[in-house]
Amino acid sequence: MGRDFQVPADEIRWRQNRLQKQMQEKGIAGLLIVQRVDLFYFSGTSQSGFLYVPAEGQPLLMIKKYLPRARKESSLENIVGIHSIKSIPALIADTYGTMPDVLGLELDVLPVNYFYKLRNLLGVREVVDGSPLILGTRMIKSAWEVEQMRRAAAMSYQTFEYMAGAIRTGLSEIEFTGMYEAFARKQGHGAMLRVRDFLTEGYAWHLLSGWSGGMVGVLDSPASGEGTSAAFPCGAGHKLLAADEPIMIDFSCVLNGYHMDETRMFAIGSMPERAMQACQAAVAIHDAVLDHVKPGVAIGELFDVSVAKAAALGYADQYLGPPGNKVTFIGHGVGLELVEAPIIAKDRKDVLKPGMTLALEPKMVFENEFSAGIEDVFLVTETGYEMVSQVPGKVFVCHPS
Amino acid sequence: MGRDFQVPADEIRWRQNRLQKQMQEKGIAGLLIVQRVDLFYFSGTSQSGFLYVPAEGQPLLMIKKYLPRARKESSLENIVGIHSIKSIPALIADTYGTMPDVLGLELDVLPVNYFYKLRNLLGVREVVDGSPLILGTRMIKSAWEVEQMRRAAAMSYQTFEYMAGAIRTGLSEIEFTGMYEAFARKQGHGAMLRVRDFLTEGYAWHLLSGWSGGMVGVLDSPASGEGTSAAFPCGAGHKLLAADEPIMIDFSCVLNGYHMDETRMFAIGSMPERAMQACQAAVAIHDAVLDHVKPGVAIGELFDVSVAKAAALGYADQYLGPPGNKVTFIGHGVGLELVEAPIIAKDRKDVLKPGMTLALEPKMVFENEFSAGIEDVFLVTETGYEMVSQVPGKVFVCHPS
Repeated sequence: MGRDFQVPADEIRWRQNRLQKQMQEKGIAGLLIVQRVDLFYFSGTSQSGFLYVPAEGQPLLMIKKYLPRARKESSLENIVGIHSIKSIPALIADTYGTMPDVLGLELDVLPVNYFYKLRNLLGVREVVDGSPLILGTRMIKSAWEVEQMRRAAAMSYQTFEYMAGAIRTGLSEIEFTGMYEAFARKQGHGAMLRVRDFLTEGYAWHLLSGWSGGMVGVLDSPASGEGTSAAFPCGAGHKLLAADEPIMIDFSCVLNGYHMDETRMFAIGSMPERAMQACQAAVAIHDAVLDHVKPGVAIGELFDVSVAKAAALGYADQYLGPPGNKVTFIGHGVGLELVEAPIIAKDRKDVLKPGMTLALEPKMVFENEFSAGIEDVFLVTETGYEMVSQVPGKVFVCHPS
Repeated sequence: MGRDFQVPADEIRWRQNRLQKQMQEKGIAGLLIVQRVDLFYFSGTSQSGFLYVPAEGQPLLMIKKYLPRARKESSLENIVGIHSIKSIPALIADTYGTMPDVLGLELDVLPVNYFYKLRNLLGVREVVDGSPLILGTRMIKSAWEVEQMRRAAAMSYQTFEYMAGAIRTGLSEIEFTGMYEAFARKQGHGAMLRVRDFLTEGYAWHLLSGWSGGMVGVLDSPASGEGTSAAFPCGAGHKLLAADEPIMIDFSCVLNGYHMDETRMFAIGSMPERAMQACQAAVAIHDAVLDHVKPGVAIGELFDVSVAKAAALGYADQYLGPPGNKVTFIGHGVGLELVEAPIIAKDRKDVLKPGMTLALEPKMVFENEFSAGIEDVFLVTETGYEMVSQVPGKVFVCHPS
C-alpha cells in the first residue's frame, strides 16, 4: 500500500538530469517549481513548498509545511524549511551565489496574481515559461513509472470485475459510481484525480447509460452525459440503470499518484444488437490504431487512421460525436496527471517516442440514444507498443437482478 | 433531485445588479467571466463558455459547448454560440457598440498563459482584477441560496447518521470514506468539491483516526492525517479503524452546486476520557464564538474569542495545532465553493454581514496522538446567527462490530 511507497533516488536523478539538459539547451538558468504534481515528480514529496532547479548542480527544496515529512519522503540532499515565500530569493542567492538571469516558471498553471507576486519578489531579469520542459520530461516514463502504472492497471482491472458483479437495474448512475469507487479505494485508489487545465475537472464517475450516453454537453469529449445538476452537468446523473441498454463506464483511478483511465461497455441482460455492433467497431478502430503505433510515427497519423477506419466500418456520422459536435482527439498521455502530453489529436506532427503512456479512446455517439466505445492505456516501446491495461477488451453483459 | 434544479431568473438579476453596482463604483466598464463557478453563479449554467457583464445593461453569454443546454439552463436573454475564443471581441463590440476601456478578469484564477492570450485577443486599454468584485458579490447569500444550503445540510445530516450505523473496526480509513460517499451520492451528493486556490485540492475523505489525527502535514489545517501515499499525503489513509480511539470525520458534500462542510468526532466502543474532554472543550469554544456573531463584528474578533476560550479551558497548546504549527484561522465562507470569502482569520478587520454562510471549525491536535474538534455551518442574520447545519453537536459513540 501507499504507506511504504517512495520514489527511488535514482529515479529522481534521472528526471532531474533530463530536465537540466533541456534547460542548458534553452538557456534557462533556473526553474522554480510550485505546482504540486511537478514538485512531487522532481522531489518525491508533495508537501507544501517550492523546488528550485538550477541548470547545473543540486536542486533546493524549500518546504513551508511539513519539513519532517518532506525529509522522510524526498531523496534530495538540499531540503530546508521556510516560513514564508519571502525567504526564497535569499535562499537561492545564498545557495547558488547569484539569482538566475533567466528563470522558468510554470506559466500554464500559475494564476496571474500569484505570478505577479512571485515575479516581483524574485526580481529576475527575464521570466520564461518552464512548463514545456517539465511536461516534456514527464511525458517519457521510466521502467519504474511503467511498473507503477501496471499496479494501477491491476487495481482498475479488479474494479471492473467488481462492477460486472455488482451492477444491477434500479441503481442510479451516480449511486453505482459511488459503489465502485468505494471498492477501488479499498484496493488502494487514492480518490483524487489530477488534471492540469484550470477549466477541466477530473472525476471518476463518467458512467453514461442509455440516453444519457447520447447527450452532447460541456465536455471536450464525444458525450457528456446528464450529470447531477446544472452545476455539474457531466458524468453520472440520477437516471436509473435499466435492463438491455448500452452503459458506458469510463473509469479513472489513481494509485500512489499514477492514474489509469479505461472505458468498457456494460449491459444488464442483453446488449441491443445495434449497440453491440458499434462496440465491436470501436474495438476494431482501437486495434487499427495500435497497429500503427511505433516510435517515429506522427501522432496526427493515429487520429487519421482511426477516422478512416470508422468511416470504412460505416460509423462516420457517430464517430467522435455527432456531426457538428465531433472532438478532434482520440487519446492523451496519462501518468501523474489524468490528462498529460501528448494529446493524440488531428494534425499533430510530433512523433511517438518510447516511454510514452497513452490512453486511446475511440468512441461513438448515437445522439439522444447511447454511446459506444472503448478506452485502454498502452506504452510505446522501442519497436511498437505494449498494453498497460489488463481489463479484457470485451463487452460486459451482466445478469439482471 | 438535480434534474429539475434551476437558478431562478430573479436570483440571477439580483446577483447581476449587485455586481454592476460595484463595477460602476470602481470604474470597471466590463467583466469577462471565464471560471466555471463564477459563470454558473451569474448565468445559471456551467456549460463551456464566457460571460461578458457590462457595467450597465444585459450581459452576453457566449457558449462554446453546448448551446442547447445552456439555453435551457440559463434565464439570461442574450445567449449566443461561438466556435472559438477569437469570436469574443467582435461579439462584444457588436453588442455594446464598443470594447470596454477598463476590463475586469478573474486574475486570481486565470493562468498566466491563458491570460496573455486573452489580453492580446481583446486588446483593451486596461485590464484589472475583477475577482474581488465577484467574490464580494458571492459572499452574501440570498434566501434562495440559503435554502439550497439547507438542503445540502439535510443530505449531510443523513450521511452522518449513516456513518454512525456503518462505522466498524477493521475498515480502513479510506475504505470507510468510500462507503459514506457512496451513500451520500445516493442522496444527491454531486461528488465534485470545488475550491478556488490552485494549490488546494478539495476532497470529501478527511477522516483521521487515532494517531493519524495527530499528524501535522501539508495542509493549512491543524492536522493533515496520513493520506494514501506521498503523492496525496493528507486525509484518510490505509490505517484500520480501531476500537476506543478518537476518530475525526470532516465531511464535505455538494448538492446542486452548494457545499456543506461539517466535522464530528466518532468512537467505536468508547471515547477515551482525555479525548472526550477535548471534544467538549471544542464545542464550548464553538459556542463561545457563536455568542459573538452579529453583523458589524470584526471577523478577527471571532478568532481572538476562540483562542482566549481555548486557553481558559486549558487547551492553549493543542488548539489549532501543536506549538510551532498552529493555523491562524478558525473558519471560512462556504457556498458554490467549499472555501470562499471571508476567511475567519487572525487580525481580519472586515466585518460580519447578514447573508454570509460560514463554516466554523475549532480543532485541537494532540501531536502523534489524535485530533478533536467540531465544524458547523451557520448563517449571519440581521440580529445574530442561525445554524445551517443539522447534525447534532454530539460525539458519536458507536457500537463495536
